[in-house]
Amino acid sequence: MRRSAEQTRLRILDAAYGLFWRQGFLRVSMDEIAARAGITKRAQHFLSKDALMAAVLAYASDLAIKRLRDFQRPVANGAEFIDSYFTQLGDWGAKPKYSGAGFTRAAVELADLRGHPARAIAHKHKLAVEKWLAEELACTGVAAASDRAREVMLLTEGAMVLMLIHADQSWPKAAARAARILIQKR
Amino acid sequence: MRRSAEQTRLRILDAAYGLFWRQGFLRVSMDEIAARAGITKRAQHFLSKDALMAAVLAYASDLAIKRLRDFQRPVANGAEFIDSYFTQLGDWGAKPKYSGAGFTRAAVELADLRGHPARAIAHKHKLAVEKWLAEELACTGVAAASDRAREVMLLTEGAMVLMLIHADQSWPKAAARAARILIQKR
Repeated sequence: MRRSAEQTRLRILDAAYGLFWRQGFLRVSMDEIAARAGITKRAQHFLSKDALMAAVLAYASDLAIKRLRDFQRPVANGAEFIDSYFTQLGDWGAKPKYSGAGFTRAAVELADLRGHPARAIAHKHKLAVEKWLAEELACTGVAAASDRAREVMLLTEGAMVLMLIHADQSWPKAAARAARILIQKR
Repeated sequence: MRRSAEQTRLRILDAAYGLFWRQGFLRVSMDEIAARAGITKRAQHFLSKDALMAAVLAYASDLAIKRLRDFQRPVANGAEFIDSYFTQLGDWGAKPKYSGAGFTRAAVELADLRGHPARAIAHKHKLAVEKWLAEELACTGVAAASDRAREVMLLTEGAMVLMLIHADQSWPKAAARAARILIQKR
């Protein structure tokens, strides 16, 4: 019984993840999510759409951070890391259904709802990405890696948003060029 | 009669602008907008919420670009321009109801609807801001001002989003520091 409840919970998370990432959070209804998950009784698993949004973001954050940490790049220095990082960002943005970063999107869709539980997870997630960047930059010998990681975050968020606004994949290239200058010793 | 129709149209635009900027585009209904504008027959002015969104963004873009162009700063060089520009961004982000940039928010809320008329206006607006930045940077003697304007756009969008995600106003300061380095001759 317990196991089945957990499986249903995962099925709902999975269905919600797919729908949220495709259409954003606001336009998807709990009924659509239940239909996609193939369940009828949802109340016992998630008490509200707000709680489900937070659970989906927490689930997606764990996956994303794990993916970042598992990813080993053979890079010789900071400039190579920057190029590899922004090339991947550009590859993602070039996908036909690219619709921006899920965590940024959640924060923006809920821009006037500061206390929303999903906002807290988006905040935590972006701090984790920043920490990962600082560690990677430090490993390649970049000085003041925490400050440089903040700059790379600025360029990353800017590139993700501008790729969306302009449907133009040259933004991560411009971001990489800027980041390469910023990480130089000075 | 004609004049009154135009006044009603402006009243609707004004009401929609206030509601959209506060709550985002998706959660506001046409009925709420009509109620706030104090009108009952709205169908003759805007055929759909999508058309109204586009009209509001076009109206807001005209105002915003005019404001940028009218704004004369006594700046001696590129670094001073950058400081003045990002200081203002930080002042905006420090407002209690800061909820990100309206045009970015529109693009993000409609991330999966590439052909939406409001997306076209957000795209046009951001290009106009970039052009203004390039002109201002060129005036202060910054070399390759168009390329530098793109970098300032990346840092601007990044700072606006990260202020929202983290409720932290130090991001425009980090952006200004990065921009000052990027505009140096090299």
